[in-house]
Amino acid sequence: MRKIHVIGIGAGDPDQLTLQAVKALRSTDVFFILDKGEVKSDLVQLRRDILDAHIPEGTYRLVEARDPERNRSAGGAAYSPAVGDWRSARAGIYERLIAEELGEDESGAFLVWGDPALYDSTLGILDEVLGRGAVTFEYDVVPGISSVSALVARHRTGLNRVARPVQITTGRRLAEGFPEDVDDVVVMLDAHQVFRQYADEDIDIYWGAYIGTPDEILASGPLASTAPRIERLRAEARERKGWIMDTYLLRRHPRGQGG
Amino acid sequence: MRKIHVIGIGAGDPDQLTLQAVKALRSTDVFFILDKGEVKSDLVQLRRDILDAHIPEGTYRLVEARDPERNRSAGGAAYSPAVGDWRSARAGIYERLIAEELGEDESGAFLVWGDPALYDSTLGILDEVLGRGAVTFEYDVVPGISSVSALVARHRTGLNRVARPVQITTGRRLAEGFPEDVDDVVVMLDAHQVFRQYADEDIDIYWGAYIGTPDEILASGPLASTAPRIERLRAEARERKGWIMDTYLLRRHPRGQGG
Repeated sequence: MRKIHVIGIGAGDPDQLTLQAVKALRSTDVFFILDKGEVKSDLVQLRRDILDAHIPEGTYRLVEARDPERNRSAGGAAYSPAVGDWRSARAGIYERLIAEELGEDESGAFLVWGDPALYDSTLGILDEVLGRGAVTFEYDVVPGISSVSALVARHRTGLNRVARPVQITTGRRLAEGFPEDVDDVVVMLDAHQVFRQYADEDIDIYWGAYIGTPDEILASGPLASTAPRIERLRAEARERKGWIMDTYLLRRHPRGQGG
Repeated sequence: MRKIHVIGIGAGDPDQLTLQAVKALRSTDVFFILDKGEVKSDLVQLRRDILDAHIPEGTYRLVEARDPERNRSAGGAAYSPAVGDWRSARAGIYERLIAEELGEDESGAFLVWGDPALYDSTLGILDEVLGRGAVTFEYDVVPGISSVSALVARHRTGLNRVARPVQITTGRRLAEGFPEDVDDVVVMLDAHQVFRQYADEDIDIYWGAYIGTPDEILASGPLASTAPRIERLRAEARERKGWIMDTYLLRRHPRGQGG
């Protein structure tokens, strides 16, 4: 039976790998690396560095494929179908990679930034591949340090306040309104700096980009005064590196209350 | 300057330690271990096992103290003040431990189950100690694999569905109602199996106890049929071990939609 590991490799700092992840890397015969295109080639290189650091060369095979393009031009209601098409295209690629590149008794692995549980499509795609029935395999998941955990660790703050909830959501959702009944909100996948929409509310922001890497940038403070600074830092970094990955926590203060 | 590491050590599986956590352990002179009382002595032992596995004996000191009792009898509105009192009592203990047991140029560490960012008081207490001004120190945070990440990895599912939010909350909050505008909800600190309250809704549950340890128990399925099974498993485990730590994800299906 073929085996697949879906391995969370942390948010960018190679030391964020768990011992479990290192063991899974060492038991892998074939690594599948999906390249999202030139703007993220830094990330592909970081993945290679992780392999070089933990596994002797010549003990594994590396299979690279090009990710299908995702139709990001479709806005609003069209979002989910576009994602569905993209996922099916990706499932086709995964199916082919597994069938053609992985021997019957071998172990393959997909390396996932952060934690495979959070805004990552790998698990859903593998389920779709299994559902198609053309290839069979067992798979397991190695949890990783998410960019969310890494962000708040660098800011030395918690995700939730005492006995209160925290919500993790997307920039697109935040644009529709601040979530109900929750004052601590982590925002991922926000290409449009939606936090600016809330700059007149009593909210603190904890922001970070390229967290855990040598390019890491952090900023935090009251949203009104910090938002323009983040906007500037973000534009400069994006210009310099050609891409940006950032995440932030918004912490709203109920009227009349501090910290 | 004294240094303190707040180190997330994962949800129970010693292999969930990150390489960063192992390095932090090895650079620590004094470990502070707060014992919550006899029912959780298994957890104290697990912490010792982690130290034994990664650091040569005789290279560090272990300082143990008894956690103050938390007044859990106060219900409802009294919850936060009780937590506040308990936190202040704990801050007093931490202050004394740091002042008396840690030399001026030494490094101390607090080992935190899961991720220090999620429903853990250590960071808040250290801030309170610094605020009092009697001792000074630098501190950093090493993020850990939370029981939330470990739970969903074992169930091989994600925390969120595509482009949708996830909320992490407490049993106490869930008892007040299912959160608004979010269909994926992770519940921690639920001593009363509040999920039973929602057994007539179209919800799947992914439940786990002692995740990552040899005692791990997992159960998942439609809430209506799975809730009684979890209730039984939980009662048996609690009886057998004397304590239980469990977490679950509730995944609500919008009317008329599957998976």
